[in-house]
Formats: sequence, structure tokens, C-alpha cells
Amino acid sequence: LERSRAHRIVWLLEELNLDYDIKLYHRTESQRAPEELKKIFPLGKSPIIEVDHHNGKESKKLAESGHITNYLIKHFDTNKKLTANTEDDEESVDYFVNFSEGTLGAHLTYLIVHQVGASKAPFFVRPVINAFVNKMDTFYGISEVKLCIDFMEDILAKQAKINPEELYFVGDHLTGADVMLFFNIQTLLDGKRLGDAIDTADYPNMNKFLAQVKNRPAYIKAEEKIQTVGKNQFAKDPIS
Amino acid sequence: LERSRAHRIVWLLEELNLDYDIKLYHRTESQRAPEELKKIFPLGKSPIIEVDHHNGKESKKLAESGHITNYLIKHFDTNKKLTANTEDDEESVDYFVNFSEGTLGAHLTYLIVHQVGASKAPFFVRPVINAFVNKMDTFYGISEVKLCIDFMEDILAKQAKINPEELYFVGDHLTGADVMLFFNIQTLLDGKRLGDAIDTADYPNMNKFLAQVKNRPAYIKAEEKIQTVGKNQFAKDPIS
Repeated sequence: LERSRAHRIVWLLEELNLDYDIKLYHRTESQRAPEELKKIFPLGKSPIIEVDHHNGKESKKLAESGHITNYLIKHFDTNKKLTANTEDDEESVDYFVNFSEGTLGAHLTYLIVHQVGASKAPFFVRPVINAFVNKMDTFYGISEVKLCIDFMEDILAKQAKINPEELYFVGDHLTGADVMLFFNIQTLLDGKRLGDAIDTADYPNMNKFLAQVKNRPAYIKAEEKIQTVGKNQFAKDPIS
Repeated sequence: LERSRAHRIVWLLEELNLDYDIKLYHRTESQRAPEELKKIFPLGKSPIIEVDHHNGKESKKLAESGHITNYLIKHFDTNKKLTANTEDDEESVDYFVNFSEGTLGAHLTYLIVHQVGASKAPFFVRPVINAFVNKMDTFYGISEVKLCIDFMEDILAKQAKINPEELYFVGDHLTGADVMLFFNIQTLLDGKRLGDAIDTADYPNMNKFLAQVKNRPAYIKAEEKIQTVGKNQFAKDPIS
């Protein structure tokens, strides 16, 4: 899908230096996944990848970003470039992968769906709906997401004390934790998902983290490939 | 927290035959976690567990249900009772743990928050708010959750063909996939989260799965302990 969390998987494929093809599915008018995707995987979700091991092992269809990330790193990170150094680090990565889709992902989905939904309400009830959505978001969604943002900034601030040159969520190099959290942080800071509720300048470490990722050769190559496949139909900053 | 997804972790601790204490935190009036929980873990989320390895290894605080489940089974399933038999099964478990908190969890959180929020709207705007919430839920939340329910029922139906006596999401015995998905299925079917949008009788395999889990000695013991700690302040069927 265009503008999608699938971008992080393309980036991961580039980091692992794997051969892959991208197949693009267009969102429907309501920004949802099209029926065709359901033929490939019953939940009709993106991303879905089909893995060919090239060693006689059966090919496999994978879904769910956290699982795809775990699987690719486990099977294809032959140089241990993205593999955690210690058992403790491995467990921290598992925590962050779960956090990115569990606690943080749930709140983000909620905010995004609300914003799309409220914008489609009939004009004569829109003020009431907007008031309701704002109240729900302020009371529930935004306050929870703010806790998450502060939490992530604190972790990167601690990491910066150990190694100010390069920021990663776990240990001293890129792991699945960074691949998974990058999309959420980009949505929040670049995508300004919380509107005026936060000042993005208050999060220097996360901004530094975003800039660092965007400078990685694999990330740049992934974005180029995505733009080529999408014939420039993709937004530069994926936001949903 | 009372009425909480933390119950599944207590059940898992019983399955693994571990010693543990439960500390109960009461929800605030708005059904949220209290400030005290934030002192223990910055996100103020339940469940949080503190693990004492009793072997000189440092004790660890863990959060995020999927991560807690993975960690406990990895470190404490000495008899391989809940460990997957094969690498393929292990990967399927990883998929379902991610699915339960990723795709399915996000949609469920969304529906639950909406239902609590709409019930608190001022009476004079409630009809408009209810219409909006219903429309959003029907259009987005419920249709997505329905896909997930059908998907899970299909998986259990296939499993039933292999082993009609006992239903598990992966392989021929209980794994982290079942521990994680049980809560979601219970919320959906027993908690009737989708109201009239589905007929729970249409899901015989999931109903059978629920009944089987509730009959497990470890599950029964976990519920008894939870009731004792909560001095019967817990709802019998945890729903949120």
C-alpha cells in the first residue's frame, strides 16, 4: 500500500541486502486495503511478504510487521548486522517490538482512524463530532501517546549518554526495535499526529534518531525503490 | 488491575507452576490505570511483572503482555509444556502473539474506548455521538474485527480436523499463541463486544476453545487466586 507501515519492511530488506520485488496495492477511496489483498492473506493487510529461501526450503507467506521483522532477522541476518549482541539485548528488542504494535500501535491506530472519520462527518453535525473526537482524543488517545513519546525520548536520552554519536533503542547498533519504532516516531513527529498537543522540538533525541535513519544508505535506497514502483504516487513521508 | 488482560499472565504463571504474588491496583473512575502504577513502570500499564530467577541472576521488571509471555515461556518452561515442537510452530506462535496485540488488539482497544467514551457524552448530544460512533465502528472497527474473528475460527476449524479432541492455535498443545489470543476471544464472544453484529453461535470452534481453557486446572486456580486477592471485587469474566 502507498503511505504505509510497509515501508519499514522494504527498508529492512535493504539493510539485509536481500533480493525482493515490491507489489503495490492501491488504497480504496476510504483509505483501506483493497479486496485483492484478501486473496493473498485473509485479513487483507499490508505488509505481506512471500519468502523464498532458495535452499529447497518451502516458501512462506508472512504477515504482521513485528513477526516479519523477527523472521527476516532470524533467517537472513547472516552477518549479524541487526542481531542483538546479548540475551538481555535480545529480550529488550522483543519488548520494543511488542510495545510498538501493542501499547503504542493501538493508540496510534485509534487517533488516525478518528482523524479520518471526523473529516468525513456531514457538515451540519461536524462541530459536535469534532468536539467529541477532540474530547476522546485529549482524554484518552493523546494522553496515552504522550506517555509513550516521553518514554521513548527518555530511553534515547539514556542511550545518548553511552554513545552520543549514534542512537539506537537497544545496544550499539540497529536492531528490529529501531526498524519497528521508526515508523511510529515518524508518524508522530514528521506526521504531526498530535497537532498542537506537543512541540516536536521538545524531543531532540527522537528527531536525531529520525534524521540518522533517513541518512542510512539502505533507507535511502528503499525509499527510491518505493518511489519507482509507485511511479511517484507515494507520499514522501509515509503517514498511516 | 481488575477486569484486565493481566489475567492471562496469572493463568500462564499457573501453567508454568511458578511461585508468584499478585498486587492489585484499582482502576480510576474513568477505568484507567492509577498513578501508582506509573511509579513501577513509566507507562503505567498493567500487567507488569517482576521476575526473580532465584539463581543469582538479576531480577527484571517486564511489561507488554506479548513480551512477558515470550519471556516466561523461554526462561521457565523447564518441561517444554508450552514450548513449540518445531521451528515452524515457533514461528507460527510468534505470528499469533504479534497478531493478538497488533492487528486484533488495535481494533479491540478502539471499540472498547469508543463504547466507554460514548456512554459518557452529555445527554443532549448523545444521539449524534452515538450515530457517529456507530458509523465509525460499523465502517471501520467492527468490519476489521469480523475479519479477524472469521480468520481465527478458520484456523481452529483446520486444527479440529487434525485433532478434534483438543483445540490449540499452533500444533498439538498449549503455547503462547493460545495464552495471548484467549483474552481477545473471551472479550469478543463472552463480552459480546460486537453486540448484534455477530451471532456468537456462528463460531463453534472458538466457543469450544474458550470452554476448554476455562476447564484447565491452571486456569481455574488462576481465577481463584485473582478472586482471593481482589476479595471478589473482580468481575468473573474480565472484559477490558
